Amino acid sequence: MHKLVLIRHGESTWNLENRFTGWTDVPLTDTGIAQARQAGQLLAAQGYEFDLAYTSMLARATHTLWHCLDAMQRTWLPVEHSWRLNERHYGALQGLNKAETARQYGDEQVHIWRRSYDVPPPALEPGDPRSERGDLRYASLNPGQIPLTECLKDTVARVLPYWQEAIAPAIRAGQRVLIAAHGNSIRALVKYLDGISDTDIVGLNIPNGIPLVYELDAELKPLRRHYLGDAEAAAQAAAAVAAQGRA
Amino acid sequence: MHKLVLIRHGESTWNLENRFTGWTDVPLTDTGIAQARQAGQLLAAQGYEFDLAYTSMLARATHTLWHCLDAMQRTWLPVEHSWRLNERHYGALQGLNKAETARQYGDEQVHIWRRSYDVPPPALEPGDPRSERGDLRYASLNPGQIPLTECLKDTVARVLPYWQEAIAPAIRAGQRVLIAAHGNSIRALVKYLDGISDTDIVGLNIPNGIPLVYELDAELKPLRRHYLGDAEAAAQAAAAVAAQGRA
Repeated sequence: MHKLVLIRHGESTWNLENRFTGWTDVPLTDTGIAQARQAGQLLAAQGYEFDLAYTSMLARATHTLWHCLDAMQRTWLPVEHSWRLNERHYGALQGLNKAETARQYGDEQVHIWRRSYDVPPPALEPGDPRSERGDLRYASLNPGQIPLTECLKDTVARVLPYWQEAIAPAIRAGQRVLIAAHGNSIRALVKYLDGISDTDIVGLNIPNGIPLVYELDAELKPLRRHYLGDAEAAAQAAAAVAAQGRA
Repeated sequence: MHKLVLIRHGESTWNLENRFTGWTDVPLTDTGIAQARQAGQLLAAQGYEFDLAYTSMLARATHTLWHCLDAMQRTWLPVEHSWRLNERHYGALQGLNKAETARQYGDEQVHIWRRSYDVPPPALEPGDPRSERGDLRYASLNPGQIPLTECLKDTVARVLPYWQEAIAPAIRAGQRVLIAAHGNSIRALVKYLDGISDTDIVGLNIPNGIPLVYELDAELKPLRRHYLGDAEAAAQAAAAVAAQGRA
């Protein structure tokens, strides 16, 4: 039996401002830092140990991991960064306020952009100053791999090769893995692991900064999934995520 | 031509308390954090870019690296940890105050333990609670690889294989490397790179938190070595390090 722990980054400045973030590299708030440290304290108190951690190329996930490892006194653990764990790219919505966008386009349209499985938000123009093409950290990618927008289906399509080629082999080899990532890259993994349908994934929300523990069998099939700590608090935090896109 | 940047961690709590630290895992002070961030700002302002960073298994070097990368907005860079970059092991002196130790054993004896090339301090007993044998982070080593004390010669002997097998090949392959480490693991590298004699290395001190830049030729022979920023401040900080072991 293997254990795998997923953690969505703590509250970011744009979570707080209720703006679409995507690949924009915004920092954690003080609340987000405290969430990350609490997650580490909880993991340490419950005796979790890890051999290896994965995170995205974005600072809010990396900082969450660093604070978490620091609270566990495990700052020496190996960490691997991949763009494949980045948040879903939010296209031309990146930077816009979610409630204002809902007032402008309607709750229904924003709900579709936020939660439909295969309808992406409007794409960034390639020359848009918000585009990540030209960002040093993605220099090793083909420009075509750097999205201009993504629906969740697109995110699943670029997260899964990393699961298959890097993370799953490490877990099978006995490595205890911690992944610090984003709402939608974690939804992509949960959808795959639990075999959630394209329809039902719409209703799944991941709260910030609460460790999500999977117990997996030898084939990496989930036996059990639960949030660490206060289950009621985790459910309320997930419901708050679901409510963010309403006018 | 290759560039290589070395940085000794910022001030730690035991630097401040003037205690022998070695492999004891003490945190940075607020001053140490500020030094690390300033180092990152200086590197960014002068246009330094890195592809890869190396650090030790100890939190004060890792935190220095993290704050430095954070100030450079390069939190996504790959980082490799190795025990071979740890500080020199200070044996049974770990935890003792340097000035008190000098009063007890005499300035001369403490100077020998601090700066002689081949006289190690008294060894820890293997069962000493200060020993790192049994520490999870070193679980992949043979117990015999975990020192009970070290002279600088011993530190050189375990740093150089890591230089030869990991760092130097990366630099030769064109990777721009940043190393965040410790006073004596950096002295070991400087001794090797600059061909400093066993006698002359005694007089070399590395200040906390100031980037040391090497320009290396294709054979990794040093063309030039200099501290980044205020040269006078770096010289004063190095002199302060030299004075720490006096009663």
